[in-house]
Amino acid sequence: MAVYTDVAADELARFLSDYDIGELMSYKGIAEGVENSNFLVHTAGGNFILTLYEKRVAAEDLPFFLALMEHLAARGLTCPQPVKNRRGGMLGRIAGRPAALVTFLEGMWMRRPSPSHCAAVGEALAKLHIAGADFKMTRVNALGISSWRSLYDHAKNRGDSVREGLCVTISDELAALDKAWPRDLPQGVIHADLFPDNVFFLGEKLSGLIDFYFACTDALAYDVSVCLNAWCFEADNSFNVTKGRALLKAYNQLRPLGAKEREALPVLSRGSALRFLLTRLVDWLAVPEGALVKPKDPLEYFRKLRFHQSVKSVAEYGFDS
Amino acid sequence: MAVYTDVAADELARFLSDYDIGELMSYKGIAEGVENSNFLVHTAGGNFILTLYEKRVAAEDLPFFLALMEHLAARGLTCPQPVKNRRGGMLGRIAGRPAALVTFLEGMWMRRPSPSHCAAVGEALAKLHIAGADFKMTRVNALGISSWRSLYDHAKNRGDSVREGLCVTISDELAALDKAWPRDLPQGVIHADLFPDNVFFLGEKLSGLIDFYFACTDALAYDVSVCLNAWCFEADNSFNVTKGRALLKAYNQLRPLGAKEREALPVLSRGSALRFLLTRLVDWLAVPEGALVKPKDPLEYFRKLRFHQSVKSVAEYGFDS
Repeated sequence: MAVYTDVAADELARFLSDYDIGELMSYKGIAEGVENSNFLVHTAGGNFILTLYEKRVAAEDLPFFLALMEHLAARGLTCPQPVKNRRGGMLGRIAGRPAALVTFLEGMWMRRPSPSHCAAVGEALAKLHIAGADFKMTRVNALGISSWRSLYDHAKNRGDSVREGLCVTISDELAALDKAWPRDLPQGVIHADLFPDNVFFLGEKLSGLIDFYFACTDALAYDVSVCLNAWCFEADNSFNVTKGRALLKAYNQLRPLGAKEREALPVLSRGSALRFLLTRLVDWLAVPEGALVKPKDPLEYFRKLRFHQSVKSVAEYGFDS
Repeated sequence: MAVYTDVAADELARFLSDYDIGELMSYKGIAEGVENSNFLVHTAGGNFILTLYEKRVAAEDLPFFLALMEHLAARGLTCPQPVKNRRGGMLGRIAGRPAALVTFLEGMWMRRPSPSHCAAVGEALAKLHIAGADFKMTRVNALGISSWRSLYDHAKNRGDSVREGLCVTISDELAALDKAWPRDLPQGVIHADLFPDNVFFLGEKLSGLIDFYFACTDALAYDVSVCLNAWCFEADNSFNVTKGRALLKAYNQLRPLGAKEREALPVLSRGSALRFLLTRLVDWLAVPEGALVKPKDPLEYFRKLRFHQSVKSVAEYGFDS
C-alpha cells in the first residue's frame, strides 16, 4: 500500500497546467505499488496515473523507464504511455519528488491466475522482449547476481531468526550460483518484476503490463524464470507444471528459447528465487515487530528456491520442445 | 491508508453481477478512509466506490448509514448515493465482509482550507442538518460524552508517556464536562466527522460530502463544534478567527443557532476536542514503536482543547450574531 507523499489539490492543479489534458476533477491515492506513491487522476481529458518517485528509485534511471514505456507502446505493446508536457518532457516535479503522468490502463490483476492466464503472460513477455530488441538505452540490473551478496550481508546477522538454517542455505546458494551462473545468454530489455499484480486482464484477455521500474538489461531467459516463480506456484508453494507448460509454450512460440537458455532455466530460476528471497528478507527484518504493515513473506521464496534446487531438467517445468 | 481486505477480480465480478451497472473494467484499492477498505470501481456504467466494512464498524449500524445517504441525496445534498442491487437491497457481502457500492463523487479535498472553504462547509453543514430533520432512523453517538471515560480508561496508564501531565488534564476535563455539558440542545442527524478529507471541492465550489460512518443523532451544535476544530485552526494550532467567523456566519444564515446553542459552543468545542484527543490517543498507544504507519498526533487536540478552555464567549470564535 503506497502513498508515501501526499499531494495538495492546488499543487496538483499547478502541476497539471503544464499538460494538455484538461481540468482536474478528482484524484485518489491508490494502494498499489510498494516503491512509489501513486494517484489515480481524473481530468476532463480522461484517467491517468500520477507516480511520485520515492527515494528507492534512482532519479537518473527515470528517463530509461519512461523512454522504455514509450518505445514499447509505440511497438503495440499495451502498457502505460508517458504523457508529455507542453515542452515535450515526460518528467516533472511535485511535492519535492520527481513525478510522471502516464495513461490509465483498464483491467484487473489476477489474484488466482489460471493456466490460460500463464499462457497469456508467456506470450506478452515474448512480445516485450521482441519489442525491446531495438531499444537503444541500457540499464544495469541493480538487483542482479552481483547485488545479491551485499543484500545477504544486510540480512545475515538476523536471517536465522526468520528460519533456522536460512543463512547457510543462502550462503551456499550464493557460492553455487557464482560458479554456475550463465554469462553468455542473449541479453535485452527485461521487465524483471512481471508478477501477477503487474499484468492486467479484461475477462480472459490480457489487457496490459504495468510497473516498469525494475526494467533493465539482462538475460532474457532470466525474465522467463522470474515469471515461472511469480505465476506457476500454488499457494502451498508446489510447482504447477500445467501452468509452467502453458507459460513456456506460449513464450517459445513467439521467441523460441535457444538450447543454452533452456538448459539454464533451472539455475536462472534458482537465481530469481534467491533475488526475491533476499529483498523480501531485508524488508522483513527492517519492519519492527507488531507493525501494522506486514511485508511479504520471504520464506515463500525459500521454498521455491528449494524446489528449483531439486530440478534436474527443464522438462520438470513442463518444457517439452 | 486503507485496504485491509483485498478482493479478487472474479469475486468482485460475481458481486457486481447482482447490480445493474455493466461489466467490470478496473478497480483499485484507494488509500483513503481509516476504518474501512475502499475500492474505486470502474464499470461500463460509470465510477463507483466499493466499501468493505471492517470490524470497527458495527454491522447493525450499516442500514442507518446507507439509508441516511439515500435520504440526504434525495433532498439535494451532494453525497455518495448507495447503489441498489437487483433485489432493491443496498448491503451486500464480499470477501467475508459486509459491503456497499456507492456512486463516485468528483472533487478534491482541501489540504489547506481557506476562509471561503470554511464558509462553504458551514453552509453545507446547515443544509445537512435541515435535510436530516425528517430522517426517521436514529443512532446513538457511540463516541459521545458517555463514551469518553472508558476511552480514557484505555489510555490512562500510558497517557503521560505521550506528554507529561496529559492524564490530569483529561481527567479534570472529563469531570468539568460532566457538570457543564448541555443536555437540552436541539438534536438531529449529525455527520460527527466533517473533517477536510470528507468534503470535496471543484475549484472553489463545494462538490460533496462523504464518509457518513460516524453519523448519529446528537446535538446539532456539537457538529458545528467538530467543524470549528477541524477547519478553523492553523497548522501551529492557533485559532483563525476569520475562518471561524466565515464558518459560523454561513451556517447561521441557513440555520440560525439558538441562544442556548451559541452559549454552549465553547463547552461543546471542548467536548469535541476531547473526543478526538481521546480516540487519537488510544490509536497512538496501540501502535508499536517504529511502525511504518504513523497515527494522527493526539497532541494537536490537546492544544485545541487548551484553546477552548480559555474561551470566555462565543465572540472569540468570530460569532457576531
